[in-house]
Amino acid sequence: MHFFEEKILHDGRIIDDDILKVDSFLNHQVDVKLLREFALAVKAAFADMRIDRILTIETSGVAVAFAVAEALGDIPFVFAKKSKSKTVDPYDVYLSQVKSFTRGSVSEITVSKRFLNEGENVLIVDDFLAEGNASLGLLDLCRQAKANAVGVAIAIEKVFQGGRAKLENLGLRVVAGASIKAFHDNKPVF
Amino acid sequence: MHFFEEKILHDGRIIDDDILKVDSFLNHQVDVKLLREFALAVKAAFADMRIDRILTIETSGVAVAFAVAEALGDIPFVFAKKSKSKTVDPYDVYLSQVKSFTRGSVSEITVSKRFLNEGENVLIVDDFLAEGNASLGLLDLCRQAKANAVGVAIAIEKVFQGGRAKLENLGLRVVAGASIKAFHDNKPVF
Repeated sequence: MHFFEEKILHDGRIIDDDILKVDSFLNHQVDVKLLREFALAVKAAFADMRIDRILTIETSGVAVAFAVAEALGDIPFVFAKKSKSKTVDPYDVYLSQVKSFTRGSVSEITVSKRFLNEGENVLIVDDFLAEGNASLGLLDLCRQAKANAVGVAIAIEKVFQGGRAKLENLGLRVVAGASIKAFHDNKPVF
Repeated sequence: MHFFEEKILHDGRIIDDDILKVDSFLNHQVDVKLLREFALAVKAAFADMRIDRILTIETSGVAVAFAVAEALGDIPFVFAKKSKSKTVDPYDVYLSQVKSFTRGSVSEITVSKRFLNEGENVLIVDDFLAEGNASLGLLDLCRQAKANAVGVAIAIEKVFQGGRAKLENLGLRVVAGASIKAFHDNKPVF
């Protein structure tokens, strides 16, 4: 999506050819119009599929998921919570593990069994796709619920970290606002 | 707002005349259409004011803020982060303290100095207003930035916990989707 690449070129900050900061429009300050344009492109990319529900993960996925859920006709969305295991009841929630690429830590993510249902077609949405760990965790929640994950919509993916390949190998359609192939001289290569 | 009260009566769950669970439409699964209707009512309630920016707090405020920012014409919104003090640089962020009513703990909240600007009119948005601690923390961030907090828009307030009174005493206009005066027999009294 050209408009998303333009936004990254204009407002993203790349540090040491490694870290992409998009806090001016995606994960701290949020550009509502940009996400709505992204969501309309996601709608077009999945126009041949029935989608019943959006599944994302807190916090930065929430704004992206809101835009996509709205574009798809106000379908329900649910955000998985990064929880402390002490406070969740395994009878009430589906639970999976996600390794954070940026922090190196492992989080438990949970979603209430009431909000992920057998037979539903689920679109996974998130702000970033790197190694794919968050998406794989959300996919695992869908499997536990016997819901059908039909695809993954991502605002920004770093293709070189392999997340897309893993998800496509599992038969999922992956759609991204911007696909970054590399960083060179603190600029993204699309 | 009658539609918001109806939603709570229909889908909210009250436990022990004390805890209101709204995870089926507000803070786990999200009802996009409900929040858009709420946002349009907020727009009407602040129609006489110029609003430049929405300020909220992660996580549950993000969806509400997205809806309001969109209704107000795609103005920027920023969500304060609940941070570990070790990872923030006080030269980069405004920082305040918020006591959590439900957890009894104190969190630090931060917002980048780049995303809260002197002279801007800021509308504070959140999912819940109880004792008002989160809103007061966000107000403190505005003060540090010399931004003008002009009001507070809240999805659900529990009037009996005093948050509205504190904010109104500070001269802020407070608008809520639903104002709960009490719980009786595990039902809300509006």
